[in-house]
Amino acid sequence: MADLQAELDRIDAEIRAAEDWGEVAAYIPELARVPKRQFAIAVATADGALCAAGEAGQSFSLQSVTKVFALAIALGRSGDQLWARVGREPSGSAFNSIIQLEHEGGRPRNPFINAGAIVVTDEILAGREPRHALSEIVQFVRAAAGDEDIHINRAVAQSETRHGHRNFSLAHFLASCENLKNPPEKTLGTYFHQCAIEMTARQLALAGRFLIGPPAGPRLISTQRIRRLNALMLTCGHYDGSGDFAYRVGIPAKSGVGGGILGIVPGVASVAVWSPGLNRYGNSKLGTEALERLARAMDWSVF
Amino acid sequence: MADLQAELDRIDAEIRAAEDWGEVAAYIPELARVPKRQFAIAVATADGALCAAGEAGQSFSLQSVTKVFALAIALGRSGDQLWARVGREPSGSAFNSIIQLEHEGGRPRNPFINAGAIVVTDEILAGREPRHALSEIVQFVRAAAGDEDIHINRAVAQSETRHGHRNFSLAHFLASCENLKNPPEKTLGTYFHQCAIEMTARQLALAGRFLIGPPAGPRLISTQRIRRLNALMLTCGHYDGSGDFAYRVGIPAKSGVGGGILGIVPGVASVAVWSPGLNRYGNSKLGTEALERLARAMDWSVF
Amino acid sequence: MADLQAELDRIDAEIRAAEDWGEVAAYIPELARVPKRQFAIAVATADGALCAAGEAGQSFSLQSVTKVFALAIALGRSGDQLWARVGREPSGSAFNSIIQLEHEGGRPRNPFINAGAIVVTDEILAGREPRHALSEIVQFVRAAAGDEDIHINRAVAQSETRHGHRNFSLAHFLASCENLKNPPEKTLGTYFHQCAIEMTARQLALAGRFLIGPPAGPRLISTQRIRRLNALMLTCGHYDGSGDFAYRVGIPAKSGVGGGILGIVPGVASVAVWSPGLNRYGNSKLGTEALERLARAMDWSVF
Amino acid sequence: MADLQAELDRIDAEIRAAEDWGEVAAYIPELARVPKRQFAIAVATADGALCAAGEAGQSFSLQSVTKVFALAIALGRSGDQLWARVGREPSGSAFNSIIQLEHEGGRPRNPFINAGAIVVTDEILAGREPRHALSEIVQFVRAAAGDEDIHINRAVAQSETRHGHRNFSLAHFLASCENLKNPPEKTLGTYFHQCAIEMTARQLALAGRFLIGPPAGPRLISTQRIRRLNALMLTCGHYDGSGDFAYRVGIPAKSGVGGGILGIVPGVASVAVWSPGLNRYGNSKLGTEALERLARAMDWSVF
Repeated sequence: MADLQAELDRIDAEIRAAEDWGEVAAYIPELARVPKRQFAIAVATADGALCAAGEAGQSFSLQSVTKVFALAIALGRSGDQLWARVGREPSGSAFNSIIQLEHEGGRPRNPFINAGAIVVTDEILAGREPRHALSEIVQFVRAAAGDEDIHINRAVAQSETRHGHRNFSLAHFLASCENLKNPPEKTLGTYFHQCAIEMTARQLALAGRFLIGPPAGPRLISTQRIRRLNALMLTCGHYDGSGDFAYRVGIPAKSGVGGGILGIVPGVASVAVWSPGLNRYGNSKLGTEALERLARAMDWSVF
Repeated sequence: MADLQAELDRIDAEIRAAEDWGEVAAYIPELARVPKRQFAIAVATADGALCAAGEAGQSFSLQSVTKVFALAIALGRSGDQLWARVGREPSGSAFNSIIQLEHEGGRPRNPFINAGAIVVTDEILAGREPRHALSEIVQFVRAAAGDEDIHINRAVAQSETRHGHRNFSLAHFLASCENLKNPPEKTLGTYFHQCAIEMTARQLALAGRFLIGPPAGPRLISTQRIRRLNALMLTCGHYDGSGDFAYRVGIPAKSGVGGGILGIVPGVASVAVWSPGLNRYGNSKLGTEALERLARAMDWSVF
Repeated sequence: MADLQAELDRIDAEIRAAEDWGEVAAYIPELARVPKRQFAIAVATADGALCAAGEAGQSFSLQSVTKVFALAIALGRSGDQLWARVGREPSGSAFNSIIQLEHEGGRPRNPFINAGAIVVTDEILAGREPRHALSEIVQFVRAAAGDEDIHINRAVAQSETRHGHRNFSLAHFLASCENLKNPPEKTLGTYFHQCAIEMTARQLALAGRFLIGPPAGPRLISTQRIRRLNALMLTCGHYDGSGDFAYRVGIPAKSGVGGGILGIVPGVASVAVWSPGLNRYGNSKLGTEALERLARAMDWSVF
Repeated sequence: MADLQAELDRIDAEIRAAEDWGEVAAYIPELARVPKRQFAIAVATADGALCAAGEAGQSFSLQSVTKVFALAIALGRSGDQLWARVGREPSGSAFNSIIQLEHEGGRPRNPFINAGAIVVTDEILAGREPRHALSEIVQFVRAAAGDEDIHINRAVAQSETRHGHRNFSLAHFLASCENLKNPPEKTLGTYFHQCAIEMTARQLALAGRFLIGPPAGPRLISTQRIRRLNALMLTCGHYDGSGDFAYRVGIPAKSGVGGGILGIVPGVASVAVWSPGLNRYGNSKLGTEALERLARAMDWSVF
C-alpha cells in the first residue's frame, strides 16, 4: 500500500494549496464555527490496510453520512417493507425540499434526502424511547468501525433542535400524511442526535468497510444488500448533485453537511474524506475534489 | 461461454412463461401494432463471444436507446461545451415532462430525457441538412456494431412526426429559451428519424461493445468518456425509474419505448434485451426482468 | 324587508330539500362530529335590518372566516408593512399547500390561505402573550357584531392543536424562511384559538356589517380598507375555488371549514350562511348554493 | 361629463410627468419598436358620452385584450360546454406558463392565460378556415365599437408567428392532451391574427360598452353573461398580477402586452387606457396607474 499512501500524501498537499475552500454550513451555529481550512483523507482497503493523510484524527460531525448506517439498520429491522414508506429514486430536488412530498402524498423519494431519512429513523425508533434507538445506531457504527470510542455530540444535536425548523416542517408534513409512526418531536429528537455522531476520517473509513462487499470486507449485511445500498448511494447520495458526482468521480458515496463524505470502491476499499467547506449542493467542496483525484489516480470507478 | 448460453436459454424459457407482458407503447400507431408477446436477449462479451436467445434476429425500433449513441457523437463533436446546454442530473420526472424545463430556463436536466435528447440531436445537426446528421449517426452505429445492415424505418419516423405533439411542445419550448440552434422542425425531423433506427437484439449487443471499456472492448471513444456515459446511463437511463433499476439490476443501461434495453457490464459485456410491452415508467417490463435475472445469475453488478 | 325575509324562507325551504349535503371536515375530531344536515342564513342590511332563516341561532366554528377579522386587525396595527410578509394574489393551490411557499421563499401568496393567515396572526401577536392577542381579536369581533356573547371554543382549539400537523409544517417552514416573528408554537396556539371562535349565523351577519362600506355601514375601518378587504375576499376568499365562486355568485366572501361563509354586498348588506358539509374545495356546499340563489334573487352582484 | 373630461385631462398631464415608463414588450420585433412614451385614456359612459385624453386616436395592438371578445364569442357559440376544456380559476402563474398544463392534464386554468385563450380560439375556429373565424371575431369587435374601421395588422401577426415559440409549445402540448380540435398551426394562425387586431383607445372604450350591463349599455350578450365575463376579468384579467390590480384599482379589466387595458365599471362606464411600457407582470405600467387614479377620483370600485 506504499503507492496508496504516497497518493494520499500527494492529494493532501495539492488540496491544501486550494484558494477556494467553499463555505461552512451556516444554518446551525455549532457547525458554523468549525474552521474551514481543514482536510483529511483515509482509506481502508479490503485486505485490511489503513492509510490516511491530513487531519485524519480530527473528529467532525457526520450529519447525513449517518443516513447510510441508519438505512442499513432499518432494512435489517423491516426488510423491503420499508419501501412502502419511502422511494428509491433520485429526487431531482434540494436535500430539504418539501415540494415532492406534497406532490406524492408524503412518500419521500429516497432515504437520503432529509424527509426520507426522517422516515428511516422513524422506522428504527418503532415506538421505543429515543435513547434505545440511538443506542442501536451507535452500536452499529462502533461495530462497523471496530472502535468503541465513537460518540454523539449533544451540543450539536441541541443546536439542530433549536434551529431545525425545516426538518420540523418536513416531519409534521409526514405526520399529516400519516407517514410517521412516532410523535414528530420524538422522531426528530432521535434524528438530530443520530446526525450528531462524530468520527474522525480514519474511523469513518473503517466504519465503511462493511459496504466493500465481495471478495473481501467484513460481513455485517448480505452481499445483495451491500449492492443495493451502494446503488442508492450512487444514484441519490449527493442530493441534486448526484448525477454530477457519478459522472466526475464514479463511485458510490454519501456526503454530509459537516463536510464528510464516505465513498465505497466495491470489492476494493472504503474511503473517507473531510473538509468542512461546502459547494452549492451542500457537499464538501474539497472532499469531492479529493475523491475525484484519488479515483482517477487509482483507476477506481465502478464504470 | 457455454454457461452464458445456457443461462440465456434458461432466462428465455422463464420469461416466456410470464402472464403479464406489459403494454405496448400506444402513442405512435406504428409502434402500437407490434405484437407484444416477443422476447429476445443477446450478449456480446469483451473477449469477442456473442450469445443470444429468443427472437434475437427480429428487428425492433431503437427509439430512446439511440440517445446513447447520439450522446457519444455529440460529445465527440463538441466535448464538454455540450454541458452548457444540458445537465447531468436525474430529473425525478417523466421522460416527456416540460415542468423542469420551465423551472430551469430551458436547460434539460440530462441528455436521456426527451428534451435533453432533442438538444443533443440539435448539437449534432449543427446547421447541416438533417440527412447529413442522420448519415453520421447511422454510420456511427454501423461502425459500433460492425454491421452495415442497419437502417432507419421511415414509416416509424413519419408516424412520430404526425403524432409527436409532446416533442414539438418540448422543442418549441427549448427554442423559446434560445436553447435550439436549428429550426424546431429540422431538429425534430432529425430526432424522429434517429429514434426510428431499427436493429435486432444481436446487432444491438454488438453495437454496445464500445461502452464495455478496459481491459477489453473496441476503442471508438476514450476510457474516461466510456465511464462517463455509463455513469449517465446508470443515474438517468430509465427516466424516473432509474433509481429502482440501479437498485434491482445494478448495471448502466438505457431503455427505449420500442421495448429494447442496452445494458453494459463494464469490462465484461454488452447486453441487449427486447420485449415490446412496457411497465409504468415506459421501460420494457420483461426486458427489465430478464436483465435482473441475468445480472443475478452471472453475478454482474457494478456495486 | 318583507321581500328579503320571504326570500330567505324560500331559500331555506329549497336547501333543506337537497339530497347531497357534502362532507363534514374530517381532519379535526371536534368538527367531524357536527351533524351535517343543518343550514342557516342571515342578512344584516346597510339600513339596519336583520333577517334570518334556518338554524340561525345555532353556534358553529368560524375557522377560516376569522381570517377576515384578523386581516383587518393586522392592517390596522401594521398598515401596508404587512404586505412585505404576505402577497395579495390568488394562489392557484389548495388552502394548505406548501409548494408555493418553497418556490417563493416563504412569502405566502395571500392572507386567506393557511400559510398567509398564520403570518397575519403572527403579526398581531407581535411578541405578546397569546391571550393578549386573542383578547384583541375577540374584542374586535364583539365590537363588529355589537354582541359581547361571542367566545372561543377551547375544545376545538385543543383538538386542532393535536391534529394540526399540516399547519405545524407550514409554520415551521415560515420560521425556516425567517417569516415568523414569534415561536411557531405560540403563533399556532394563537391561530388555532382564533379559528375556534364560535358564532351563530345571526351574529356573523351582524359582525360583517363593518365591510358593507358607503353609503351606510358602521365605520370600524376606512372606506379604502373596506374595498381592499372585499377585493381580497373576492379574488382569494375561496382558495382554489375563488374564480368559480366569483363567476357563480359574484360577491366578495370568505369561507371556513366549519361550513360558514361571510359574504358582502358592498353598500347593501352583510350575509352569513352556514351548513357544515363541504364541497371538494373545502367550502360549504349548500352555503355556496344558498348564496348563489340569494344573489340571483336579489340581483346582488358587484359586476 | 365636464368633470370626467377634466379628470382625464388632469390624469393625462400627471402621467406624462412620469420618469419610469416601463419596458416595451421585446419578444416580438413589431411590438418592440413602438415608442414607449405614449399614453391615451378614453371613457365611454352608460349614458352615451365619450371622453378622451392623450393619444386617443393612435392605433395600438390589442393583443390579449382580444381574449375578452373571443371569450364572449365562444360562450355564444358553445355555452357552458366551453368549461369542459378550460377552467375559471386564477392560475397563480405567469401568462405563458406551461407547468399548470402538465399538472392538470392539459386543461388551462382560465381563458385569459395564453393556453386558455388558445383553447377559446380553437373553439371558435371549429373546423372552419381561419379567415372565417377571424371574420367573425372582427365583425363582433366592429359591432361592439359601432365602427367598421377596425383591422388586423398582418405584419404583427406574421412577426408573432415567426417568434411565437412559446405559444407553439403551449398549442402542441394542448394537442398532445387532445384538448385542441384543429391542427395547432391553424389554431395558432387564427390566434396570432386575432391578437393583432388594432384599435385606438377611443375605439376600445366604445367596444367595451357591451360589458357595462344594466341599467344601461348595449345588449350584445345577456346580463348574466356580462357579469360572468366581468368576474373572470377581475379574478384572472392580469395574470399573476390580478389580485394586486383588484386590490389597487377594484374594477374588472383585461390587459394586453401591446400596452392596452380595457376596464369596466359595471352599470357606469367602459374605460380604455394605453401606454406601451409594461410592468413586471406584463401589464401596462402607466395604464395601470392611470386606471388607479381615475377609479379613485371618480369613486369607481365594485367593492
